[in-house]
Amino acid sequence: MKLPVLPSILLVISTAHAFQYSELVQYVDSHQEEYVEALREWVAIESDSSNVLKRPDLHRMMETTAQKLRQMGGTVELVDIGEQEELPVNVKFVIEGMEETGSNGLDTMIMTQKDTFFSDVDYIIISDCGWLSRQPALTYGTRGNCYFLAEVEGPKQDLHSGAYGGTVIEPMTDLIGILDTLISPNGKILIPGIREAVAPLSDEEWKMYQDIQFDIDNYKKKIGVSQLMYSNKVDLLAHMWRYPTVSIHGIEGAFSDPGTKTVIPSKVTAKFSIRQVPNMDPAMVKRQVSDYLHSVFAKRKSPNKLKVTMVIGAKPWLADPQHPLYEAGKTAVKRVFGMDPDLIREGATIPIARMFQDVTGKGIIMLPIGAFDDGPHSQNEKMSQYNYIEGTKLFITFLHEVAQINKTTV
Amino acid sequence: MKLPVLPSILLVISTAHAFQYSELVQYVDSHQEEYVEALREWVAIESDSSNVLKRPDLHRMMETTAQKLRQMGGTVELVDIGEQEELPVNVKFVIEGMEETGSNGLDTMIMTQKDTFFSDVDYIIISDCGWLSRQPALTYGTRGNCYFLAEVEGPKQDLHSGAYGGTVIEPMTDLIGILDTLISPNGKILIPGIREAVAPLSDEEWKMYQDIQFDIDNYKKKIGVSQLMYSNKVDLLAHMWRYPTVSIHGIEGAFSDPGTKTVIPSKVTAKFSIRQVPNMDPAMVKRQVSDYLHSVFAKRKSPNKLKVTMVIGAKPWLADPQHPLYEAGKTAVKRVFGMDPDLIREGATIPIARMFQDVTGKGIIMLPIGAFDDGPHSQNEKMSQYNYIEGTKLFITFLHEVAQINKTTV
Repeated sequence: MKLPVLPSILLVISTAHAFQYSELVQYVDSHQEEYVEALREWVAIESDSSNVLKRPDLHRMMETTAQKLRQMGGTVELVDIGEQEELPVNVKFVIEGMEETGSNGLDTMIMTQKDTFFSDVDYIIISDCGWLSRQPALTYGTRGNCYFLAEVEGPKQDLHSGAYGGTVIEPMTDLIGILDTLISPNGKILIPGIREAVAPLSDEEWKMYQDIQFDIDNYKKKIGVSQLMYSNKVDLLAHMWRYPTVSIHGIEGAFSDPGTKTVIPSKVTAKFSIRQVPNMDPAMVKRQVSDYLHSVFAKRKSPNKLKVTMVIGAKPWLADPQHPLYEAGKTAVKRVFGMDPDLIREGATIPIARMFQDVTGKGIIMLPIGAFDDGPHSQNEKMSQYNYIEGTKLFITFLHEVAQINKTTV
Repeated sequence: MKLPVLPSILLVISTAHAFQYSELVQYVDSHQEEYVEALREWVAIESDSSNVLKRPDLHRMMETTAQKLRQMGGTVELVDIGEQEELPVNVKFVIEGMEETGSNGLDTMIMTQKDTFFSDVDYIIISDCGWLSRQPALTYGTRGNCYFLAEVEGPKQDLHSGAYGGTVIEPMTDLIGILDTLISPNGKILIPGIREAVAPLSDEEWKMYQDIQFDIDNYKKKIGVSQLMYSNKVDLLAHMWRYPTVSIHGIEGAFSDPGTKTVIPSKVTAKFSIRQVPNMDPAMVKRQVSDYLHSVFAKRKSPNKLKVTMVIGAKPWLADPQHPLYEAGKTAVKRVFGMDPDLIREGATIPIARMFQDVTGKGIIMLPIGAFDDGPHSQNEKMSQYNYIEGTKLFITFLHEVAQINKTTV
């Protein structure tokens, strides 16, 4: 099924105000209720691109966003804003609605706008991420993701397991059999070549991870488990950020409702994904997974048909945390929160980071304001009011710091 | 969730007509359109007890059935029909609407009616089954079924696989791991004790199976597969009827919709069932499966919690195909179809057969009129008009033959 992809909106906002830190911070504090009310209106629009039934909400979200930005003096179209030397910094927005399904169409949009919208852009700031703890953070890397469908097809239609069970080679049994060869109980990926491609953990990294604030007990409590895959901080952070993993998300085509049904499903499709880290290559991973699963499947001597497809192939992203953009971030965090940020990575995939980097070649920073316990994509996902309000101040300050960067040093 | 169970209807019909074979057969033939029309009205009511949203249809089906039988002179309540020596045979109906979910409540109903409704019953005829080929058949056995839920529970809520993948021990991986130990690719059940309990195939059985009409190529074509679990007739029939098998029906709680979702499901429940044959005992099977899965799970050293429950435990049923009731069936088939019936078993579970036998102690026959390619419980399930019309004649003739059984010989 071809789904309509919502095009991204390009927004340009210019501002002519001089930077007055304490006045701005005071303004944010005294208008907290308005910020919360604005957020309330926005989150009431259920713009979830992974739910095709909610495409109208997605459109409404885009329209609302455009409207709000127009009210704030932005121009919601592609324009040449010219040179305005008297301003400390100009801001352009790219607002994107298809993140949940892999940012469909965004890469093409960026490429076509490379020499127009992006031509006078110096830096790119992404804020689709969160802190690791209550300590403010700057994010310098994200994992990529290769999302696979493994389909096993057998009988031409579903069969009654009483009437046919024992005589047919069941697709579900085959699928379970090959899924069970992806990863060991202790988290070791069993697909040949995957682990070999991963950049080794350097001593510097080990030291950096060692210094990061991360409360294992708190993390366990947040997730609600008694035991994690690793028991020490460095191993945990490394496997969260810079090692690949396999997650099996579910199976389509089998019986998944409550109750009991005695069916032999005729065609079942497993969904699983492998997080990508440097120096893995999605094209290579695609071949490794497909070759491996087909070889495992062949050993079963099943008459059923296996089809392995990779439907998302997002590369990881890694920045230099010494880049002037990150120095600006460190200064801004220090000013707003009175402490140094943790330099962290993100286990999740934010395809736009890598995409912007590859296409525009600009300096990129991920500046998170999400709280560590927001629970993105999960039940009862929330936003912390503290992070929302202080994060607003952080953005104000950061934009000021960015304006101070001496371009010749970059 | 407690679902309302629809009580069965007890129906009693008496008939005073003498048996006139050719007139009756002619009547059926000349009224084919009316029979088809009646069926059309009935199947328009979607009475599927496995779909809780269709309970109103189930009620409507029961009411329609009762109404139709009243029109035909039946008494839709529990009555003492007395002795009517002048009639060849009296008929009582038990019409049951919860078959798809394991005939909930039927056993209790039968037990409470044992000394009332069933007290003057001589034989029980069940027709919830089908032929094996185009050859008419009598069914003398059915497999039972033990239906299991295996639930693995981990984190307190679903997690994002990017943010958490690699640090948590995923319930889905655990579940796949234990499901993969149930049955080998070539159909061998791996749960200790299961195969040992199965009655060995006797030489007589082997000979009987050898003589049954069964076209393997046709069977493969019907299912739409290029290869079956066994390549010879006796092995296929034996594994369809008198050996247990494991079918994995699906997983509840994982991502099962179309599209891509990067979730780590926090609680996943597999549904699988093991067909029961003599001399397996569901209570024993329950313990064997639970012990085995827990031992396999323990080896994974996972912090997640496994819960194994058996929600259906239906015993197999086996009759003596030399019983006078079967002799009556053979005579009736010979008269209507001009050929001897195949003596077959049913791979599926018809809990009422075993239930009636255990509680009433009466002689039971399964007299199938369903066609071999009806596809029960599957997509495009259908009824063959030939089987419907000729089957109607078979019932007329069979009831006459039953009336001839000399009770003293039984």
